[in-house]
Amino acid sequence: MYRSHNCGELRMDHIGQEVTLSGWLQTSRDFGGMTFIDLRDRYGITQLVFNMDDEAEICGRARKLGREYVLKITGLVRERTNKNPNRPTGNIEIEVKTLEVLNASKTPPFTIEEETDGGDELRMKYRYLDLRRPVVQKNLIFRSELAIATRKYLSGEGFIEVETPVLIKSTPEGARDFVVPSRMNKGQFYALPQSPQTFKQILMVSGLDKYFQIVKCFRDEDLRADRQPEFTQIDCEMSFVTQEQILNTFEALTKNLFKETLNVELPDFPRMSYDDAMRLYGSDKPDLRFGMQFVEMNDFAKGKGFGVFDSAELVVGICAEGQADKFSNKDIKILTEWMQRPQIGAKGLVYVKCNADGTFKSSVGKFYSDDELKIWAEKFGAKAGDILFVLSGEDEKTRKQLNELRLEMGNRMGLIKEGDFKPLWVVDFPLLEWDEDSERFHAMHHPFTSPKKADMERMMKGDHETMKSLRADAYDLVINGSEIGGGSIRIHDRELQSKNFDLLGFTKEEAEAQFGFLMSAFEYGAPPHGGIALGFDRLCAVLNGQSSIRDFIAFPKNNTGRDMMIDAPSPIANDQLDELGIGLQEEVLE
Amino acid sequence: MYRSHNCGELRMDHIGQEVTLSGWLQTSRDFGGMTFIDLRDRYGITQLVFNMDDEAEICGRARKLGREYVLKITGLVRERTNKNPNRPTGNIEIEVKTLEVLNASKTPPFTIEEETDGGDELRMKYRYLDLRRPVVQKNLIFRSELAIATRKYLSGEGFIEVETPVLIKSTPEGARDFVVPSRMNKGQFYALPQSPQTFKQILMVSGLDKYFQIVKCFRDEDLRADRQPEFTQIDCEMSFVTQEQILNTFEALTKNLFKETLNVELPDFPRMSYDDAMRLYGSDKPDLRFGMQFVEMNDFAKGKGFGVFDSAELVVGICAEGQADKFSNKDIKILTEWMQRPQIGAKGLVYVKCNADGTFKSSVGKFYSDDELKIWAEKFGAKAGDILFVLSGEDEKTRKQLNELRLEMGNRMGLIKEGDFKPLWVVDFPLLEWDEDSERFHAMHHPFTSPKKADMERMMKGDHETMKSLRADAYDLVINGSEIGGGSIRIHDRELQSKNFDLLGFTKEEAEAQFGFLMSAFEYGAPPHGGIALGFDRLCAVLNGQSSIRDFIAFPKNNTGRDMMIDAPSPIANDQLDELGIGLQEEVLE
Repeated sequence: MYRSHNCGELRMDHIGQEVTLSGWLQTSRDFGGMTFIDLRDRYGITQLVFNMDDEAEICGRARKLGREYVLKITGLVRERTNKNPNRPTGNIEIEVKTLEVLNASKTPPFTIEEETDGGDELRMKYRYLDLRRPVVQKNLIFRSELAIATRKYLSGEGFIEVETPVLIKSTPEGARDFVVPSRMNKGQFYALPQSPQTFKQILMVSGLDKYFQIVKCFRDEDLRADRQPEFTQIDCEMSFVTQEQILNTFEALTKNLFKETLNVELPDFPRMSYDDAMRLYGSDKPDLRFGMQFVEMNDFAKGKGFGVFDSAELVVGICAEGQADKFSNKDIKILTEWMQRPQIGAKGLVYVKCNADGTFKSSVGKFYSDDELKIWAEKFGAKAGDILFVLSGEDEKTRKQLNELRLEMGNRMGLIKEGDFKPLWVVDFPLLEWDEDSERFHAMHHPFTSPKKADMERMMKGDHETMKSLRADAYDLVINGSEIGGGSIRIHDRELQSKNFDLLGFTKEEAEAQFGFLMSAFEYGAPPHGGIALGFDRLCAVLNGQSSIRDFIAFPKNNTGRDMMIDAPSPIANDQLDELGIGLQEEVLE
Repeated sequence: MYRSHNCGELRMDHIGQEVTLSGWLQTSRDFGGMTFIDLRDRYGITQLVFNMDDEAEICGRARKLGREYVLKITGLVRERTNKNPNRPTGNIEIEVKTLEVLNASKTPPFTIEEETDGGDELRMKYRYLDLRRPVVQKNLIFRSELAIATRKYLSGEGFIEVETPVLIKSTPEGARDFVVPSRMNKGQFYALPQSPQTFKQILMVSGLDKYFQIVKCFRDEDLRADRQPEFTQIDCEMSFVTQEQILNTFEALTKNLFKETLNVELPDFPRMSYDDAMRLYGSDKPDLRFGMQFVEMNDFAKGKGFGVFDSAELVVGICAEGQADKFSNKDIKILTEWMQRPQIGAKGLVYVKCNADGTFKSSVGKFYSDDELKIWAEKFGAKAGDILFVLSGEDEKTRKQLNELRLEMGNRMGLIKEGDFKPLWVVDFPLLEWDEDSERFHAMHHPFTSPKKADMERMMKGDHETMKSLRADAYDLVINGSEIGGGSIRIHDRELQSKNFDLLGFTKEEAEAQFGFLMSAFEYGAPPHGGIALGFDRLCAVLNGQSSIRDFIAFPKNNTGRDMMIDAPSPIANDQLDELGIGLQEEVLE
């Protein structure tokens, strides 16, 4: 037996008991006659005492042990004279009687504490050591608990968890698939699912009624800072439901998860149309932890002789309360340059400071009188000490630029409070998005999303311009400016689905080859259905007020899709390639 | 709103209420003035009544609806005159007031009833229709409930569910890997995990203490009848544990699952050494639902002048109670031929019938007197009316052949009772298995399995013959002759692990390239640890007394690894291949 108790559970009640503990040497302090060792496991830390007078041999051995050695000890629980109130086991210590070294340890390449001195690369290579840090373990334990709470809630609501296959079929629409060459069917490939979308719809056709799955999904994309090639979704689908019922169901799930894991009671989630979100925040995932809504200025800023505004499609601004003093000319110049970086791409930045005496200081002061700027201030609800930032240009681009500025200002002004959660449903998304470059429509959500009932006839019969105005029964769940998930009511009619594939530029043959099984299924009594998928990694991060999902994944990959610990991907043997009937292309071999 | 109630919940209490139901048309009966429709969903079936006198228009439409149409109706709940006690909703019916066809259905290619007339191929192609059958839905719901019970139990015991990666590294040892070409690292490949073995060990090194995961695993093997390329495991690992503690933990889990899902209380599981299992049953997964243990006969059957036996390494038999009458000469000939099929490969089959008058009838009667055969009967505990079947030949092969015969006889004799569960721990497996063909050792479980403590020194220092006799802390959980799972105490010492790789024929370089990260991890304070993996698909089947796992998988693949519904695997586009830097080999292109 390796232990009678773990390193986190001994209390005053245990005093006088002989116990066996196993764990890792966290720290060791040697005071000549006495040696103290902090022994650590997942559950906590317990102080061990070795006494040179009573147990010279054991104490002598104990002095030589290094950090991260694995020890098994037996000893007597006794009260500490020098109690540590910051530690649950801080009232007791163990007077060690026997000591066994279960395993030695080389000196770790970084410190295994709450804060570590290890860089990202090193920590990923020695992930097993990084995972020993309580702060990282806490994340994994949180993730496990969040999954339990999710499953408990959804199964309580009658959802059935069904495992959908991982080896499926490549459908090049959307993101890039990871593919898997088939040995038994040479020249053919499986693909890893980007989501179980078609399978969950098939389960609805099969009458399963309420499905969910916490499931790995895969996308072979160039990795941005916070993307992973494999990620986890809470994937759900329901039959015979309206959008309203779906929103209510998953709002209730989200509230329940906040309550169960954080003991936070969320109020009812507001809903905002996609159009309003873009109009007021320039984003389909607005962060509602602070206001600073956009004010459209075309009506009162154009036609005053300032050419930049006059020629712009949109003039729009935000008001940063009480920030006038914080921005010197130099600060404004730096902020303007920040906005002009290629990542944002603003042409310039106009400001208006509201002075205490009712006058204004502005970069466009020579085009606008104080009386005119007073109207601006009124439209913004600005008061003395506030500063307005104004952008102009092409509508969509300008809104996106101002969104970046709004978020930046919210951060700088400390408007984002820890522990503040502002969920939001964004609804009424467009069905299709016109892509100027490829001159074709893209699905705003995905090709299975249903237009609103009122738009179906227009969709079946309308012209090109009509298609741009179609609205979908599609919705996103946004929390604190992060898209936590999205979903839609799905098409369940073969003709409508076929029309949608047409609009998206599929030939009949392509649609049939890739999604024929789904369209066939629609001919055998497919029920109305809809669902949602929530990003599980993202949800973990948002619940913990963190921005990176990587800290909630046990073995994340780096930005080139590499697992630094196991060193994957890696070359494989030629006979493996031969068995699969594939080879490397010349350029790769060189 | 599509429904106020589902099709399984209306009772006498609801009489007089107006309700809305949605579901599928199961059957329709037309009696001129009245039309009855059975409306089905996941929850049950409710009878609808359409009356020609009261609602001629609706009734007229209802008459024309075919099987599997999707309907939404409103109507009044009323008491049935002709009650159906076999159906939970059998006391009521709905007098329909409004009828909406939500979707039409073509005539299904097979009947959607408990028993279907659809063949395997057709049912897999139209899996969405097969999944509508309540018997198949029941299996998926059972699977979902078993997963919930598993997670509930293990998390209650302090296990943390951690998701390990799906894109890992190819390690050609063992079964064949599925591989995934990397686009960002051209010429390199990920592999899909055959199990999360090394990752769960890494989690133990990282101090997670108790890990579990219900996880998809992948093996690119030629598919035997009941194998799937992707399958699901309950994967577990614990630190600071002995084999005894692991067996007790997972025996308790198994008992809990039987209790929670079947309300069956299992007694304590017996334990049997691998040697005893092979000696008494010729199998490392004996079916203990019946006896018919092997009796070794070398001592009394050899040396009597019957050359076949005299030259055999082993003479061994079983006694089939009361079966003497059931086997005519012709039956024995047929059985002998069955044993001689290449799948079993017995050279012949000797029988001895115990007659009522104390005499014997045997195929080897001319070599053995009745007195001698009487000794045989005594050794077998055989009585009048019994028949002995005896095989001879090379030890291991003969035992395996007799195992097949024992199982066949158990079936024929009706000794396998429905609802009878006989779990068993098989323990003390050999560490290594000598393979005559490749002239090398294979790991009996896998390369990470620890030898028994008492054998470690012999392993580090011993010669070739010594290696054959090493025992491992490895164990299998067997229920009713099915291997439900297996596990072991793992090696946690770099040197021992390195020695094991040596013995298994790895060069130092191969071991380092494939498992270097694990051996490195062992140098930084790896705790003693061990675990188990249970086959989740198999567990589902065994709990339901079924032999095929396929019926418990929502979307299984056929014997060539093909998903018949979505038609995967399939060719991919050349630009996908180019992006990955791979091509098809010439032979494949032809």
